[in-house]
Amino acid sequence: MFKRTIFTCSVLLALAFSGCSSLKNTDSSKATVISAADFGLIPDDGIDDTRALQSALSVCRNHHRATLKFEKGQYDFHPEFGKDIYFFISNNDEGLKRTIFSLNECRNLTIEGTDSSFMFHGCVNPFIVNNSEDITFKDFSIDFSRTFHSEGIILENNEEGMDVEILPDFPFTVHRGTLLFTGHAKPEEKLTTVSKGEIYGSSHMLEFDTKKRETAYMARDFYFKPITGYPARPLGGRKVRILVPGLKGTPGNTMVFGPNHRNYPGFVLSDSSDIRFSNVTIHHAGGMGIIGQRTRNITVDSCKVTPSGKRMLSTTADATHFVNCTGFITLNNNLFENQKDDATNIHGIYVQVVEKSTGNKILVALKHAQQFGFDFLKPDMKVELVRGKSMITYATATVKSVNRINKQLTEVTFQKALPDSIQVGDALAEIRDYPDVTISNNIIRKNRARGMLLNCRGKTIVENNTFHSPGAAILFEGDSFFWFEQGGVTDCVIRNNTFDNCLFGVWGKAVIDVKAGIREDRENSRYNHNVLIENNTFRVYDEGTLLNAYCVDGLTWRNNKVEKTNAYPARDKKFKRFEINYCDNVSIDDRTE
Amino acid sequence: MFKRTIFTCSVLLALAFSGCSSLKNTDSSKATVISAADFGLIPDDGIDDTRALQSALSVCRNHHRATLKFEKGQYDFHPEFGKDIYFFISNNDEGLKRTIFSLNECRNLTIEGTDSSFMFHGCVNPFIVNNSEDITFKDFSIDFSRTFHSEGIILENNEEGMDVEILPDFPFTVHRGTLLFTGHAKPEEKLTTVSKGEIYGSSHMLEFDTKKRETAYMARDFYFKPITGYPARPLGGRKVRILVPGLKGTPGNTMVFGPNHRNYPGFVLSDSSDIRFSNVTIHHAGGMGIIGQRTRNITVDSCKVTPSGKRMLSTTADATHFVNCTGFITLNNNLFENQKDDATNIHGIYVQVVEKSTGNKILVALKHAQQFGFDFLKPDMKVELVRGKSMITYATATVKSVNRINKQLTEVTFQKALPDSIQVGDALAEIRDYPDVTISNNIIRKNRARGMLLNCRGKTIVENNTFHSPGAAILFEGDSFFWFEQGGVTDCVIRNNTFDNCLFGVWGKAVIDVKAGIREDRENSRYNHNVLIENNTFRVYDEGTLLNAYCVDGLTWRNNKVEKTNAYPARDKKFKRFEINYCDNVSIDDRTE
Repeated sequence: MFKRTIFTCSVLLALAFSGCSSLKNTDSSKATVISAADFGLIPDDGIDDTRALQSALSVCRNHHRATLKFEKGQYDFHPEFGKDIYFFISNNDEGLKRTIFSLNECRNLTIEGTDSSFMFHGCVNPFIVNNSEDITFKDFSIDFSRTFHSEGIILENNEEGMDVEILPDFPFTVHRGTLLFTGHAKPEEKLTTVSKGEIYGSSHMLEFDTKKRETAYMARDFYFKPITGYPARPLGGRKVRILVPGLKGTPGNTMVFGPNHRNYPGFVLSDSSDIRFSNVTIHHAGGMGIIGQRTRNITVDSCKVTPSGKRMLSTTADATHFVNCTGFITLNNNLFENQKDDATNIHGIYVQVVEKSTGNKILVALKHAQQFGFDFLKPDMKVELVRGKSMITYATATVKSVNRINKQLTEVTFQKALPDSIQVGDALAEIRDYPDVTISNNIIRKNRARGMLLNCRGKTIVENNTFHSPGAAILFEGDSFFWFEQGGVTDCVIRNNTFDNCLFGVWGKAVIDVKAGIREDRENSRYNHNVLIENNTFRVYDEGTLLNAYCVDGLTWRNNKVEKTNAYPARDKKFKRFEINYCDNVSIDDRTE
Repeated sequence: MFKRTIFTCSVLLALAFSGCSSLKNTDSSKATVISAADFGLIPDDGIDDTRALQSALSVCRNHHRATLKFEKGQYDFHPEFGKDIYFFISNNDEGLKRTIFSLNECRNLTIEGTDSSFMFHGCVNPFIVNNSEDITFKDFSIDFSRTFHSEGIILENNEEGMDVEILPDFPFTVHRGTLLFTGHAKPEEKLTTVSKGEIYGSSHMLEFDTKKRETAYMARDFYFKPITGYPARPLGGRKVRILVPGLKGTPGNTMVFGPNHRNYPGFVLSDSSDIRFSNVTIHHAGGMGIIGQRTRNITVDSCKVTPSGKRMLSTTADATHFVNCTGFITLNNNLFENQKDDATNIHGIYVQVVEKSTGNKILVALKHAQQFGFDFLKPDMKVELVRGKSMITYATATVKSVNRINKQLTEVTFQKALPDSIQVGDALAEIRDYPDVTISNNIIRKNRARGMLLNCRGKTIVENNTFHSPGAAILFEGDSFFWFEQGGVTDCVIRNNTFDNCLFGVWGKAVIDVKAGIREDRENSRYNHNVLIENNTFRVYDEGTLLNAYCVDGLTWRNNKVEKTNAYPARDKKFKRFEINYCDNVSIDDRTE
């Protein structure tokens, strides 16, 4: 009589990924081409293609190597026939995801779009790849008919706040004093105590320069505590007064209203290997464009993250982001623009020691809400033990067993007794086959915040890219008190790049910046190692800092060129070209300046 | 290399209920008494008892029949060591539930509180009982240190809106123009694009009479579209101006700010049997007090739903609620007061036919968001086919197999071809062993909305109760277009009750009211049957309607007494004492009036 609710969840897991679940060992290198049209996926007919897609994907599973090929055109994907799966997605939001392309335990599959456009409607997760190998995405774009952010033109500032004109693509209502962004659907007639409604919740704003199509010069994020909409009064038509004194912006510029979640990243890659993107354009996602976690070998080549139509924003968070990945990560020949956060961030995750239970047993916690459920600790895994405030690795240990208590807490037993010196507040991270990172020939521009966050201990090469970032173009981060992201490069080369008028915003102290979260023992802590910066061109609009190094051991700056421009007004502040603190073995050869 | 995320979910399911998972067949009727104190559950020490509780519950599982006995005092339960499980809870909100008492596949267990107080802190689910048998809860109370609703005193109405003084137990902030209720924790210092914060979101208000401690005379719910807080300006101290023109109330009265969710019901009973509550007091829950779904035999005896301290509200939704239950439901000798919805509602659930696929196959949808994931359809189950607009059952059928697509959609194949007349828009519900319902010797008063919603086809007896409900004391409902709740009594006796000045609010047309959602073919549809109303006393403050009957076949009204009072001002409207429409076999003997 009883199994029903658990059944619900099991079925949810079992069926959620029915799309493709073969892991066959038959030896055939030739892919079977499966025509999407044969399953009723007809381009440009305006009909929801999700149900037909599920059929097509379930046939793909019967082939050792398959290419699902779409005829060129637009395909529409609505929520109704999506799969449900509860998913923890690092640096995005966990939740029950209504997923369109759900690829689980899938092998040797190519999604060949033939330059088609995949248009997603409503609150759906476009792609989740889990427990899969050898998946290629090529020659298509993804977009949403209603973005998770909204945009308006700033009309004027006044004592009450700011007047804006919401742009036509972004439906809204002002209901009982609150500006709420909505879907295209007809609003619910009857409100009750349990009304949910179709609301595109927003809790932060950022001003963009309408003409330059980038974050406005020195614009700051305007954050709100968790809300769904803003205090406001309708002014008629699409004009609204946002009743927040102190909110200011330049009339004519575009206010971007950011979503209060990261529920709908474009592509989620989890616990998989050999994933390739080729000529894929991501126009929008309600979260990151591509997020890889615990995945081996990822290639993103000749892809774009760029807004469609007249929109100012592309994805509402980072273009790409990789967490606890292994093997290699290659980002080549891509355009990453106008996303609402960094172009990439490649890092690990720290858990915090919250209790010393016995000699070889501790209780650890995932601390950042967007890392909850990131269960990376496994038997036989080697981990480093790190002092929470100095970030100094003082020991290693090997896991014997783990007991997950909930999405935050895990009891970890080690094969041997831990050092007596282990303390509550220390951090712990996987020592893994850190990926080799190649980032070359990309254009990174006009997004909020930084270009690349380099926090990976594998060989990291960044070359021939052009950066036009409002913050630091390159940032080395890592801390164990706020973001709990494991960083610390060991061999990083930054060469032949053009840093084109970066730092026109507030997100960084230098074009190449180190922000590692070392709060004590700075004299001894050296978190980043062996950074070579050579043959780059720095086009700068003022005398701002080019390099801010902090707790680095081994840094060479040579043969870089600096060109002065008039792209922006100079900042009203004195800077040092090079800020070097608590570093060893630093060589700065700035003769070419 | 890959199983991790799925592992996450599986572990989540497997471990979430480690509390008690024995279903042993050893024959021993004597319970082993297990002392909570032996596991470190020490009353009144202010320490989080959740971890110790998990140990105690896991020992209970080793006994065929166990009583977990608490020494008298207060026990505190915080989220940190709770279990996670994704749960679909009918008429409440689905989600990943951080659960304190998680009882899964548990048998013959008594939680004996010895009049203790179980105090819950933060966002937790106190009790989830799943797949279990013979569970008794006795002699304890539950409460939350921070309620999910908030309360304030109305100071004045003005052109801008309403001034209130938020009461001290309900922490709040006004941040950038929005009144947000918060937890007791120190607010987050740093806001980012991913800040969540500890917000007690609210999206509707209802005025209560501070002196009478009940919903204010004729007060209406004041609903907002999905928001977390209200446009507002701080006035100093705990005074706030809510900037919503049109919001009005009586100065001195209490405004109750209802939560924008039903995430934290007190006791969830799912797919279980023989559950008893005895002398359990529910002071608060963020949702319903007791919600039973697909459960057999439930007894609630000598329990209370009542606010603690000076609070106006108890639970933020119904005191009790039972969906697709079987066997019997007994509610005797209870007090249900000041909850923010009905005292009980006993009903089934309809799915809607959304596609005729083949002769014996249809696609059905759960339509109300708080029914998503309520997967009741099973092979060999007998169902009724119901016309969506007339609510007439026109056929029955037996399920052969089901294919769940997601939490809303299911493909159902039947053992035989369905009638040709089946239409998209028809409804379908389980024909089950409808429970016999006994509701006697209860006091139901001062809550929002109605007393009892009787929508069960088993024998239903309501006797010796006292109702003081602002809406209908007894309501017969059921529809297949909004709530999708299956109703329709077949044998209902309402006798020896006192209806004490009901209808002082807006939730109903009559003291005994029928609101069945029949929208066409009213001449033929008879949804409720065989209702006997006798020997009751109706204390009334005006000439309002005592009985509103609609599409009923068989109704007898006899030997009821009406007493006039001056409890409230008479409503400025003409009423008929008896409204009888589209009924057959009605006998009204109102001689005793």
